[in-house]
Amino acid sequence: MPISANNTNRKSWIEVPVDSDFPIQNIPFGVFITKDDVITIGTRIGDCAIDMGALQQLNYFEGIELTDDMFMQDTLNDFISDGKKTWRLVRNRLAELFDATNPKLRDNKEHREIVIFDVKDIEMQLPVLIGDFTDFYSSLENATNIGKIINNPEKALPLNWFHMPVGYHGRSSTIIPSGIPINRPMVQTLPIGETTPVFGPSRMVDFELETAFITTDANIMGENIPISEVEDYIFGMVLMNDWSARDIQKWESLSFGPFLGKNFATSISSWIVTMDALEPFRAKGPKQDPSPLPYLQQKGKNNFDINLEIAIKTEDATTTTISKTNFKYIYWSMIQQLAHHTSNGCRVNSGDLMGSGTISGHTPDSFGSLLELTSGGKAPIQLNNNTERNFLKDGDTVIMKGFSKNNGVRIGFGELSTKLLPPFVRK
Amino acid sequence: MPISANNTNRKSWIEVPVDSDFPIQNIPFGVFITKDDVITIGTRIGDCAIDMGALQQLNYFEGIELTDDMFMQDTLNDFISDGKKTWRLVRNRLAELFDATNPKLRDNKEHREIVIFDVKDIEMQLPVLIGDFTDFYSSLENATNIGKIINNPEKALPLNWFHMPVGYHGRSSTIIPSGIPINRPMVQTLPIGETTPVFGPSRMVDFELETAFITTDANIMGENIPISEVEDYIFGMVLMNDWSARDIQKWESLSFGPFLGKNFATSISSWIVTMDALEPFRAKGPKQDPSPLPYLQQKGKNNFDINLEIAIKTEDATTTTISKTNFKYIYWSMIQQLAHHTSNGCRVNSGDLMGSGTISGHTPDSFGSLLELTSGGKAPIQLNNNTERNFLKDGDTVIMKGFSKNNGVRIGFGELSTKLLPPFVRK
Repeated sequence: MPISANNTNRKSWIEVPVDSDFPIQNIPFGVFITKDDVITIGTRIGDCAIDMGALQQLNYFEGIELTDDMFMQDTLNDFISDGKKTWRLVRNRLAELFDATNPKLRDNKEHREIVIFDVKDIEMQLPVLIGDFTDFYSSLENATNIGKIINNPEKALPLNWFHMPVGYHGRSSTIIPSGIPINRPMVQTLPIGETTPVFGPSRMVDFELETAFITTDANIMGENIPISEVEDYIFGMVLMNDWSARDIQKWESLSFGPFLGKNFATSISSWIVTMDALEPFRAKGPKQDPSPLPYLQQKGKNNFDINLEIAIKTEDATTTTISKTNFKYIYWSMIQQLAHHTSNGCRVNSGDLMGSGTISGHTPDSFGSLLELTSGGKAPIQLNNNTERNFLKDGDTVIMKGFSKNNGVRIGFGELSTKLLPPFVRK
Repeated sequence: MPISANNTNRKSWIEVPVDSDFPIQNIPFGVFITKDDVITIGTRIGDCAIDMGALQQLNYFEGIELTDDMFMQDTLNDFISDGKKTWRLVRNRLAELFDATNPKLRDNKEHREIVIFDVKDIEMQLPVLIGDFTDFYSSLENATNIGKIINNPEKALPLNWFHMPVGYHGRSSTIIPSGIPINRPMVQTLPIGETTPVFGPSRMVDFELETAFITTDANIMGENIPISEVEDYIFGMVLMNDWSARDIQKWESLSFGPFLGKNFATSISSWIVTMDALEPFRAKGPKQDPSPLPYLQQKGKNNFDINLEIAIKTEDATTTTISKTNFKYIYWSMIQQLAHHTSNGCRVNSGDLMGSGTISGHTPDSFGSLLELTSGGKAPIQLNNNTERNFLKDGDTVIMKGFSKNNGVRIGFGELSTKLLPPFVRK
């Protein structure tokens, strides 16, 4: 294995709980506010958040070429701009520093107290300033389900679906990290059987289970990136909940793609797991038939074996896992998405976010949205507190999790948790 | 008139050519690089660009509460965040300073040489960092034309069109100022009569004549803005060319709205004309029938009388004006667009850009795109050099202009000029 941070035999001198998403083989990157109210870039091992700004000030990154304040920033964009070589040097250095056999920081109590925080004492922030947000629609099972619910069951998929990773632009301004609650949106909708629309709280608030990747500066405007090179521009991945109000989404879809039906909120998990950390979990994607055009033809394994699950936690603190699926089923890979996105010369920058589209498996217990799990709201799902849901109720918290596991190493994303509050009312 | 900068009797000590878009009543805002390679915020009178960073350093904004480096920045976002009161104080101050009767700067040769540049010697930049870009579809004539060309002529408009300003999210990363050329995009398309798509240079590159407005920080995520208050959050306007590749746009439209068909380039004019400067040109919009829902009901005159025109300049330097129309015909006003956009709690920030959608008039010589002007590419238009165009050829420059005029005052946007280059070829 060429990436030393991925060494499966390595243990950290920081204790890592069994089944933690954050062993020393993960080393994700994020931004947090410490209990001393300092904002910094950091990483996580077990239940410890590590202040990389402080580490840099204490010279622990000596020998790696970095700007002086690289990690004393409130976004990862500059670090990401520095490119793959720097990401790898820094991640490897962190793995060495926290290696159980390395006394340098382990035995320096003073430094440890400056650098290490309990994750309970920090507040995670959005890890990047997201310039542009694109959402794809790349799960065949999801697209087929949605097509059957919304369109003709015989003609579920649009003609272009098998020829390119279709997608649309989303709204950056309402992307929030895990833990921030959202309001039920007010929406214009056309009630079934009516000819005049109404305005009021959405009655069909739904989640969408997605993953998303974060890019670095990839190209000059007007230039494409060949699919053989595109992987170098993907920094890492997060979990994403693409909140959706199905009633206005349906009414809006008569003209263009999703607009107000989606742009009230999108949640992402707070730690970016690097593609380097996910390298051991490559998987083969589904066979693509028809064969894609040459600019979308890929070699090797470009999917990733990431277990995903969704739970709903109700106000009475009852949690019900309602779906389990896996990212490896995705039809269009991330490199195909990025090659397509830049094929027309569209510029991609450091910190851009690209969502997979809802990820659904083959069976009804593996669907990625309530729209699919309840067959368009017609067949409610049962929760463990003996209530049921067609769509979400105020007070519901949607919790998404994701992790990869093999050779005794588990690399995960932590929890993506978002509570739905009642609509905003002006006083 | 409550805004002193709009005083129609005022003359400047800077000479203003006849029919200039930039009399002392305009005072637009922009960002430019001076011949000394300094980037600054500035304004324009006649053919003079005025360095507001230098003006601030020389204390000409004394008495107005501003951060020390307000105008020594490479975007207007912070200034725009300061809100309407500050915009107005600064614009009024500039009008006073350049008033023919005011000797303060007029008679200070040393200061004049520091502050004033010939517009030929500066390089205009994008005026704002655009966080999110939304494009509406609010011209009834355009939407009807497009509907007839693309859909059933009997059912040209989608059902929702008369009930809300429909729109979609665009791509911020490829918005460029006037003067920057673009490449013909490479695109995937389905040739007519075929069942398998192909990839190659777009054969249907088109412009779209639009205006766009730029916002300030408007709301907290989750909260709406009542339509009665929304106008305060609009800073000013620019001209916009929403470049479109009609072949991939058609192929993409089978799933969602525009994606690669639009995101290769969007051009905007470089000077932001404030809503204060446009105040004297308010006009009544078309009657809205059916009456909009209460959250979209507006009072007074909310359209603006802005003359618009499009010309094509070919490689032989022949310029042909191909269309003339007016922004006052727009069906959904800017305040309706912004009230709708935030109705679901979508956050709007300083520097967001919102396009009108293609602006077309009633007659064939007033259409805002080649798609309409050539009836979907079937009836080519004639240029003054005896060539014709269905869609654009490599080497064509599209020039858009816009101005308002009454009481002897002309307020304009300058030229929005963009040249189409051949596709990028990797060496």
